[in-house]
Amino acid sequence: MSYDTSLIRELKHRAARIRWLSLKTTAEAGSGHPTSCCSCAEILSALFFKVMRYDPKNPGAHSNDRLVMSKGHAAPALYAAWCEAGYLEEKEVFTLRKMGSRIEGHPMPSLPFVDVATGSLGQGLSVGLGISLQQKKVVQNGARTFVLLGDGEMAEGSVWEAFALADNLKTPNLVAIVDVNRLGQSRETMHGHDIRTYARKVEAFGWEAIVVEDGHDIEAVLKGLEQATHVSGKPACVIVKTFKGGGLSQIADKDNWHGKPVMPGQGLEQALADVEKDLMKSPPAPAIARPEDIKGKIVSGPVAAKIDPAPYKKGDKAATRQAVGPALVNLGKADERIWVIDGDTQNSTYAQKFGEAYPERFVECFIAEQNMAGVAAGLASRGLVPFATTFGAFLARAFDQIRMAALSGLKVKFIGTHAGISIGEDGPSQMALEDLASFSTLPNGAVFYPSDAVSAYHCIANLARHEGPGYIRLSRPNSEVLYDADEQFPIGGLKVLKKSDAPALTVISAGVIVHEALKAIKNLPGSEKIQLVDLYSLKPFPTEELSKLVKASNGNVAVFEEHAIEGGIGATVALKLAGDIKSFKHVAVTSVPRSGTPEELLASFGLSADKITETLKTLIR
Amino acid sequence: MSYDTSLIRELKHRAARIRWLSLKTTAEAGSGHPTSCCSCAEILSALFFKVMRYDPKNPGAHSNDRLVMSKGHAAPALYAAWCEAGYLEEKEVFTLRKMGSRIEGHPMPSLPFVDVATGSLGQGLSVGLGISLQQKKVVQNGARTFVLLGDGEMAEGSVWEAFALADNLKTPNLVAIVDVNRLGQSRETMHGHDIRTYARKVEAFGWEAIVVEDGHDIEAVLKGLEQATHVSGKPACVIVKTFKGGGLSQIADKDNWHGKPVMPGQGLEQALADVEKDLMKSPPAPAIARPEDIKGKIVSGPVAAKIDPAPYKKGDKAATRQAVGPALVNLGKADERIWVIDGDTQNSTYAQKFGEAYPERFVECFIAEQNMAGVAAGLASRGLVPFATTFGAFLARAFDQIRMAALSGLKVKFIGTHAGISIGEDGPSQMALEDLASFSTLPNGAVFYPSDAVSAYHCIANLARHEGPGYIRLSRPNSEVLYDADEQFPIGGLKVLKKSDAPALTVISAGVIVHEALKAIKNLPGSEKIQLVDLYSLKPFPTEELSKLVKASNGNVAVFEEHAIEGGIGATVALKLAGDIKSFKHVAVTSVPRSGTPEELLASFGLSADKITETLKTLIR
Repeated sequence: MSYDTSLIRELKHRAARIRWLSLKTTAEAGSGHPTSCCSCAEILSALFFKVMRYDPKNPGAHSNDRLVMSKGHAAPALYAAWCEAGYLEEKEVFTLRKMGSRIEGHPMPSLPFVDVATGSLGQGLSVGLGISLQQKKVVQNGARTFVLLGDGEMAEGSVWEAFALADNLKTPNLVAIVDVNRLGQSRETMHGHDIRTYARKVEAFGWEAIVVEDGHDIEAVLKGLEQATHVSGKPACVIVKTFKGGGLSQIADKDNWHGKPVMPGQGLEQALADVEKDLMKSPPAPAIARPEDIKGKIVSGPVAAKIDPAPYKKGDKAATRQAVGPALVNLGKADERIWVIDGDTQNSTYAQKFGEAYPERFVECFIAEQNMAGVAAGLASRGLVPFATTFGAFLARAFDQIRMAALSGLKVKFIGTHAGISIGEDGPSQMALEDLASFSTLPNGAVFYPSDAVSAYHCIANLARHEGPGYIRLSRPNSEVLYDADEQFPIGGLKVLKKSDAPALTVISAGVIVHEALKAIKNLPGSEKIQLVDLYSLKPFPTEELSKLVKASNGNVAVFEEHAIEGGIGATVALKLAGDIKSFKHVAVTSVPRSGTPEELLASFGLSADKITETLKTLIR
Repeated sequence: MSYDTSLIRELKHRAARIRWLSLKTTAEAGSGHPTSCCSCAEILSALFFKVMRYDPKNPGAHSNDRLVMSKGHAAPALYAAWCEAGYLEEKEVFTLRKMGSRIEGHPMPSLPFVDVATGSLGQGLSVGLGISLQQKKVVQNGARTFVLLGDGEMAEGSVWEAFALADNLKTPNLVAIVDVNRLGQSRETMHGHDIRTYARKVEAFGWEAIVVEDGHDIEAVLKGLEQATHVSGKPACVIVKTFKGGGLSQIADKDNWHGKPVMPGQGLEQALADVEKDLMKSPPAPAIARPEDIKGKIVSGPVAAKIDPAPYKKGDKAATRQAVGPALVNLGKADERIWVIDGDTQNSTYAQKFGEAYPERFVECFIAEQNMAGVAAGLASRGLVPFATTFGAFLARAFDQIRMAALSGLKVKFIGTHAGISIGEDGPSQMALEDLASFSTLPNGAVFYPSDAVSAYHCIANLARHEGPGYIRLSRPNSEVLYDADEQFPIGGLKVLKKSDAPALTVISAGVIVHEALKAIKNLPGSEKIQLVDLYSLKPFPTEELSKLVKASNGNVAVFEEHAIEGGIGATVALKLAGDIKSFKHVAVTSVPRSGTPEELLASFGLSADKITETLKTLIR
């Protein structure tokens, strides 16, 4: 296939403009990655001005083809392309990296063409996979998602998790593009310019590999990209050999040009001269292909998270993780934006129930937590409300993706089961002991830690309601249902499970340990002086309510929890109520747990009813 | 090649014993994964009784071939093999999953044949790669590392990070074995029994792939494994088609048998009968091949971390991250167990300096943080002291590996640079804002957060001295050197940078913000009432020392930090000094930062000198 020479001439001009703006804006900012922008100038030119179908006036539209800039450090090239497309004014593009500007150092979703923040490498393909699923199942207009990756990030395993799942799901509307510019940050990448090796890997992972030998030949790049859009039945990956600083005679393919601007007097003049040769005096207005109309149904507005009363009666025995099934099915019935994704633990997390009820909104990500979190971010970025479920311990390895989703302000919801030592015999590798510490740090995040199946059920609905990222910590063992099926569990609330008229001590716990504390207090002489708090909402934190209670008990506090000492319930209580607390007893997991029965493990860390009794005796003497 | 029939007969017997013990011990424990053990019985039989060279009486010996059980849930099969080899007594093997036993639910390093804890999937190959490097460069006796993976964990990207780096390093003494038993926890794996696809992937990643069509034909398994040991110039991967529950007539290849014991009356009798057919009446004593003698030099004992005075003078300008270069080079000179591994950020973290001085102890892991952490764990498990360096933000994605290394009690050291908002224009994706929260949870861990290049230099030596895992948080901007080159910074200490005879307020900070606080106090009327603490050692925490200071200031405390509110300096101070604190002012990072200058960012969160001055005025009125 050959192209109209005027199109090729125009695309050369667009590529030159992308280089010119990338050079100028980073030089003006005094920092940035212009050479990483120049290597992908032809790729972006071909995408924006021939291949992608979108409305340049409405970059966020569901009908548009989406582009994920996985190599986020090339953000200036992305801004330049949107400037050429007519959405951004040049004036704004020149506010790059200035305080308060949307034109940040790495792409942020304050810009409607950025779905998920990038800049931590190796995450974009997972995000793109999530977006492509939303296009396929919700938008249904044949829209595609393009993901531009750098070659350096091809070393990230999360990229291969995404390649594998896209193959498994056969998502033909996902196109990956690898900008193989040979140079990483500190040295040559693992495979340098060996584009065949990249192609071999991608093909082995079930993708169609299309190789472009000269990524600065606009016609070759355009051919490769259009070829990718004609691949059917599987995703396609275009592997493009480029040069870092491509198009700049003095800089292209040279070392030590990563992450630094080309400054006046240090090469900028020559670089601009190199680029300006390709600029047209009077370029045509861009002729951008428009997308098909949306065929599916786009739901918006707050999530309909009103759910039926919990299917449990006071006194029943159930594990908090069991509530995942009915809660998610119930939420899924009320709002079709609820999706569930799993890391091959669905039979332990009870996510399976949702998969049975709504298979078209259930994604099995297999044992690949980073990709699972990235797919969740992609889905959430297009207005869906994904719940990602696995053991709490294994979410630890996805925390970079979770962090980026939170920076993007996305409504991603994480359900972590098998928390703490009470899982027993399987041992520490399966025990989440630091999940509260990490999830508590998420900006605008919510963290729930219910003690029974009823509160778990309602807190999962809280997760859906919360306008931000969230986490719920769930337990493995069965314990007694403490609350009525229709009890309310407001976000940022707490429950006083045992009141006292003249409190001398406030005992605070959550999850399984609440039940041990209840037993401990029952058998305790002097228990009338104790009030027991079930702190199901760790974030938002019920500061005012708990402060009142703690002051009423003269600032005497005891916290019992199956989490590391740092960053859990105790740390949060101490932080939020610093100044109110006069005496503080904290019992938590202080060393590496062993295999044993849940009872033995609780006892070994002073968290069994008997051990809590002993501790409380010393406090209310 | 064909084998002596008596050898094959014996290996069948060993496989049967492995099955028998796996079935009996899990049934007695009432939990475990016997079917995952049965799929690899022939593999372990061939490894332990023909292929591996080791001293069964001394499983920890450096000269031995090592085996990493990446599919840790098959631990009972591993214990059974060591019982057959004569190291474990059957009596002890039957203490599986009992409190206090070394025979835990998943392999833990309290057993000398377990180098790093497994049970969180997808980590073993990285660990094995680290071990194989120690064998190649330190032990030098031709010893090999074998890694047994499950097929489910082949979905984990970290596995492909390890495949890629082993190819890059051409480590011929590393052998991966994939037990393709088709079934994951909740369903069939991504590729089921399609062993060709696994082979294609592995070959594309530069490994020699060897396929065994029948993993329960001991002769075929043995052939495949021995063939792998003859591959030269690159690592080899043996892909073995097996059945979950292989060898059990009623259970093999059936769904819903993951992670549950075969109990009496529910199939155990038939299963044992199936297995016992292959037992020999009077088996020969195992004839285990012995390893070559060690050619290299094994260093042991405490790390020689005495280092020269820091190469900085009071008043110099330097970033704390710059101290990484001289500190690591100095440590590397004093002790050859010091290794450094990098995630393609060596020019930003200054790890490069070590790579230049000691290239044979420097490993470039490229942009693959999970594998970097796993390689570090592998190196540390064999007595080395690896420092892994990258931006603090990117260590977040390796936290599952870091957690497992900590559960293993390993001396892995992590250096995280570019912490906090003071990196400026690059924006939030590059800012570590939750690193203190996560690293503080590590059992027996150390966390340092120095404020100048001198304290950074000495705290990096502290990291090397600390008998456990550790993290140091370093900053990007230059700031003034505050301390003399030979100042001491004991682990668990603090520095009072400004004293007060009649303190009314204790100001606590660390890192870059210490300098802002110093400036703030300098210009402050009433500053004589303020004492300023540089809290360089967050864990171990200087509880006693800081408690004295806080009490002296009537419990009035103000904390300023460039970390999320939760889990940082403020949270730790509040937790450790709960009860001592009467008033608590906490200024931290409360929302998603923007791109901007460091100064603008600090000001926007109330962390610039001027803003701190304003806050302090309200506190010492």
